[in-house]
Amino acid sequence: MFVEKITSLQNPRVKQLVKLRDRRPRDEAGVFLVEGYREVRRALEKGVKLQEIYFSPEWFLGENEPALIAEAQAAGAQAFELSKEAFAKVAYRERPDGLLAVAPQWKRGLEDLALKPQPFLLVVEAIEKPGNLGTILRSADAAGVDALIVCDPVTDLFNPNVVRASTGVLFSVPVVVAESGPVRAWLKERGIRAVATTPAAKELHTNTDLRGPVAIVMGSEQYGLSDFWLKESDAQVRIPMAGQADSLNVAMATIITLFEAVRQRG
Amino acid sequence: MFVEKITSLQNPRVKQLVKLRDRRPRDEAGVFLVEGYREVRRALEKGVKLQEIYFSPEWFLGENEPALIAEAQAAGAQAFELSKEAFAKVAYRERPDGLLAVAPQWKRGLEDLALKPQPFLLVVEAIEKPGNLGTILRSADAAGVDALIVCDPVTDLFNPNVVRASTGVLFSVPVVVAESGPVRAWLKERGIRAVATTPAAKELHTNTDLRGPVAIVMGSEQYGLSDFWLKESDAQVRIPMAGQADSLNVAMATIITLFEAVRQRG
Repeated sequence: MFVEKITSLQNPRVKQLVKLRDRRPRDEAGVFLVEGYREVRRALEKGVKLQEIYFSPEWFLGENEPALIAEAQAAGAQAFELSKEAFAKVAYRERPDGLLAVAPQWKRGLEDLALKPQPFLLVVEAIEKPGNLGTILRSADAAGVDALIVCDPVTDLFNPNVVRASTGVLFSVPVVVAESGPVRAWLKERGIRAVATTPAAKELHTNTDLRGPVAIVMGSEQYGLSDFWLKESDAQVRIPMAGQADSLNVAMATIITLFEAVRQRG
Repeated sequence: MFVEKITSLQNPRVKQLVKLRDRRPRDEAGVFLVEGYREVRRALEKGVKLQEIYFSPEWFLGENEPALIAEAQAAGAQAFELSKEAFAKVAYRERPDGLLAVAPQWKRGLEDLALKPQPFLLVVEAIEKPGNLGTILRSADAAGVDALIVCDPVTDLFNPNVVRASTGVLFSVPVVVAESGPVRAWLKERGIRAVATTPAAKELHTNTDLRGPVAIVMGSEQYGLSDFWLKESDAQVRIPMAGQADSLNVAMATIITLFEAVRQRG
């Protein structure tokens, strides 16, 4: 199959890939970047229709990259070979592995979610750091939640650092972005209890029933949960803290609470 | 109090601070770097005798830095003011906050540990990434373990990224660096059960008794636990995984296991 080779750092495609690190050009084009062998592989496994795949053999780590590129091409992606220098320019990782794809963004609404009879959901409010959102996605995947609902987002789900920190789990965990008000109403209609995590709670997370239809609700890094969720939640729980008050960040608190729910639901 | 002002990027102190990012010069000088307001404050709170404190008001974030500098000086640290450019050179953070101290390294052996009647320990083997070791320190602090024992270390405890990722908890959690053999013998002598975490275990961590004298043993990022610890452990446990096999990294697996122990030990 014919593959165009790009060596110029001034090539319009190279310039566009650099632009896609920023949100506005991403949203205008309706696409986002997927960098790395593992991430591209997971996108293909989940049936994501990659539009373009860029590769640079001089950066390959020997993961059978040619087969992955062929697979992307067979699924409809246009392939481009980049010189070492050109790839260094488009890569956002410090140590690139020679693979970068462009994937279409998607939008999922609450109405698109397929719920199990006993829904197990994670709701996060206004998370600021892409790395935390990515780590939370990994935790949600590991704990087997039905979906992650991101309320009033501050960081963009399609930020390259979310994709990276999620190790590609972004493609397997259903994620909905929505406002807090409609999410709360939607949970209520379905009889799903909202359990808010806050250091001010009286009850420990381990002493609270997390079985049945439940949504664990986590606040933002800096401000914690908003008054809206604190007021609207059906229960509030806290994690016992033996050390410094800030030793648990939101990603750590999330994984602790999710796996306590997994234990109880076990 | 007189404070020397440094503006030259060629100043020997500036050059030495840059060198201290690397392990050999650190070990030769027997010191390490503590960057950031929160980290310096925690070092002082824990009675660490800072040798030098470098500051640059143009980088301050308004955290009452002058009081902290005065406190460091009162505790015996020599203070130096740096120009904006000089501080940018010595800072290892992307967004420095104008504070950097030099602290003496310490060595703690197994014999130095003060154990509670029902010891609760965390043992990690050959952790490679400083960021993971720092996060594990935060988890150990939050869970209230008596000590962290680092076996056969690959990363240096005094790496600037460990200090940073630990948010200064390095100064409050007792940490011992030792070889696996002596650690295993030491645990046995004291009747402390070694519970190894491995994906190959039959029992879930939640179905295994983690009360009483216990040491949770975690393996390295890439290789997991060595045959030594798998063979020598008193029990093996695994965390249930709903999603991708690699969704839980070692820092995440550690925090889940530690907080299950906290729950059981209640």
